[in-house]
Amino acid sequence: MNDLDDLDAVDPLAHVRELFDLDDDVVYLDGNSLGAPPKAVAERMRDVVRRQWGRRLIRGWSEGWWEAPQRVGDRIGRLVGAAPGQVVVGDSTSVNIFKALMAAVRGTDRTEIVVDAGTFPTDGYIARSVAELTGLELRPASPDALEPTERTAVVLLNHVDYRTGRMLDMAAVTERVHAVGAKAVWDLCHSAGVLPIELDALGVDLAVGCSYKFLNGGPGAPAFLYVPTAAQASFEQPLTGWTGHRAPFAMEDDYIPDPGVARARCGTPDILSMLALDAALDVWDHVSLADVRAKGLKLTDHFRSLVRDLPGIEVITPADEWRGHQVSLRHADAEAVMGKLIARDVIGDHRPPDVLRFGFAPLYNRYSDARRAAEALAEIL
Amino acid sequence: MNDLDDLDAVDPLAHVRELFDLDDDVVYLDGNSLGAPPKAVAERMRDVVRRQWGRRLIRGWSEGWWEAPQRVGDRIGRLVGAAPGQVVVGDSTSVNIFKALMAAVRGTDRTEIVVDAGTFPTDGYIARSVAELTGLELRPASPDALEPTERTAVVLLNHVDYRTGRMLDMAAVTERVHAVGAKAVWDLCHSAGVLPIELDALGVDLAVGCSYKFLNGGPGAPAFLYVPTAAQASFEQPLTGWTGHRAPFAMEDDYIPDPGVARARCGTPDILSMLALDAALDVWDHVSLADVRAKGLKLTDHFRSLVRDLPGIEVITPADEWRGHQVSLRHADAEAVMGKLIARDVIGDHRPPDVLRFGFAPLYNRYSDARRAAEALAEIL
Repeated sequence: MNDLDDLDAVDPLAHVRELFDLDDDVVYLDGNSLGAPPKAVAERMRDVVRRQWGRRLIRGWSEGWWEAPQRVGDRIGRLVGAAPGQVVVGDSTSVNIFKALMAAVRGTDRTEIVVDAGTFPTDGYIARSVAELTGLELRPASPDALEPTERTAVVLLNHVDYRTGRMLDMAAVTERVHAVGAKAVWDLCHSAGVLPIELDALGVDLAVGCSYKFLNGGPGAPAFLYVPTAAQASFEQPLTGWTGHRAPFAMEDDYIPDPGVARARCGTPDILSMLALDAALDVWDHVSLADVRAKGLKLTDHFRSLVRDLPGIEVITPADEWRGHQVSLRHADAEAVMGKLIARDVIGDHRPPDVLRFGFAPLYNRYSDARRAAEALAEIL
Repeated sequence: MNDLDDLDAVDPLAHVRELFDLDDDVVYLDGNSLGAPPKAVAERMRDVVRRQWGRRLIRGWSEGWWEAPQRVGDRIGRLVGAAPGQVVVGDSTSVNIFKALMAAVRGTDRTEIVVDAGTFPTDGYIARSVAELTGLELRPASPDALEPTERTAVVLLNHVDYRTGRMLDMAAVTERVHAVGAKAVWDLCHSAGVLPIELDALGVDLAVGCSYKFLNGGPGAPAFLYVPTAAQASFEQPLTGWTGHRAPFAMEDDYIPDPGVARARCGTPDILSMLALDAALDVWDHVSLADVRAKGLKLTDHFRSLVRDLPGIEVITPADEWRGHQVSLRHADAEAVMGKLIARDVIGDHRPPDVLRFGFAPLYNRYSDARRAAEALAEIL
């Protein structure tokens, strides 16, 4: 398996690993759940707490904090094909799904919300809640049989399935949804930061995503929400917190939303987490997403080839390019197997009932990680 | 004015200032907007980023992160008279007001929501939004003439008015609201951490508050939500994110809320900010809220007596004990005056159109701060 270690030697992204604070004894293959910390974060946090907060105190709000949700949003925008002024960072993914769906169905005379049936639970829970609040029906459907109709107001889809790693064809699905006059809302949690995404070019209606997986923003880092320029004037949702107001410090009695993407903001932005994410995004300054994608496909190809014939293993991640940067394996004793792997410092995760997930983050994972993980798994099985 | 400096010498809370990272050249009187950083925060953040996130990675979730919203919530609970298991930390105040009001009116056959007319804008905006969503009427009313009736489902009140610093009588108002069978939801943003509050004893229905003012959690630190034990089984709100589920990692299709206060959670909790707040709360381990309140009244009394006769100044904060820990002054040129104060390193803030606010945080403000601020104001006027 030394061929894989040779690939590390010629990997054009090998130097990027140096930007992360990692323990070389650990094979970390769970960056699709929680990304590893870029080294810049610890130093930035020190500056934010001691200088910005400690020395500037309340003045920090007029020295960069207030606009941070849009400024950091624009940085994420560059990674998902969104021109500036269309992405805000803040709140959780769940809260942003609520905003997006409520805005998408506002004023509609259509009668249903469609959600992909294998969605990450929170998407389905929030979609159900929005349906109940607004009187629409919720219809879970397989991504292969979404069958949106003229009754469909909006379709909420995961770009990459959290369990299998399957990637949907965002262009084709968005086009099919638009063909019946419905809106497409995409959840990019498992694709932002690893897959090329072209939100503007595809005319996606709204999109949300988290920043703690492949964007490495830290545990529970704030999520993002994309509202394209053309949709901003009609974007109205019920979390009308003061920071989405057109003049937040005028303290007016009536809520009049900001004309731009700031209307997607709600409460006071969480600055420590926001600026930790900002620091984490510095890694992207010298990295091409095309290189990241190419390496991710190679890493996962190699890992698949090393594990697919192990006893009791079924690979459930697609073998073709319609997949994200994880390899999911079905095994009857998945939970116990993952426990043993973690005891050997090979860290992936387990999703019930029987799925082992191995995420590959091309910014810091090495081909030798794939080799070491496969060797450990082979020994355990 | 040296008498005031003498008071510092005998202040039983004087030692607490040492726990904060402060610049002695600055008179910081805006802790009612953004509290100053406790020294423990910078060190804790280093540990959270480098050890917990960096070395433990995804394992952090099972080593204290997952329960942090309730654990830190219990710590805040102790400061607001709530027994353990009734407070969760997370999301913004605005989002928590939305949860609280939606839960409060769910299933009601009553027809109105009452909000105090001088409320902080976000409370009014969210209340308006909840009214529109649910078909109830919103009635803004003076706190002196709330007049809840049997048509009233819920009354949303600010314990301390952000502009004037006036404090409402939580016991009397809650009783009046309960007398007609309505629910009382209290916003504690300007009182948590400085005023004695007895949520359990008063039978308050729900309460929210931020942690970045007198609790010193950091800019935009997560908010808290109080749901008393007896109300938890019927607490249902539409932000049904996965972390409020009874079994979040079972990834079930249907949303079944946690039986306890965790049902008030929504998305993945923001750990960096949560644990910064946790560190900030350590300050309270050796401080009595009664001492804090006593010192706050004295500080604001002294400041008031030094500024009330200055030209063009009208004190709008009540002189009696029905006030929080700020002194608000009306002045025709408030904005310009505050600019000049800040240029002299005396930091308060300005609220339109004509209010100067000076917040006194008894944990770190000194009597000499009151003297220096009053002297600077006198020179400017």
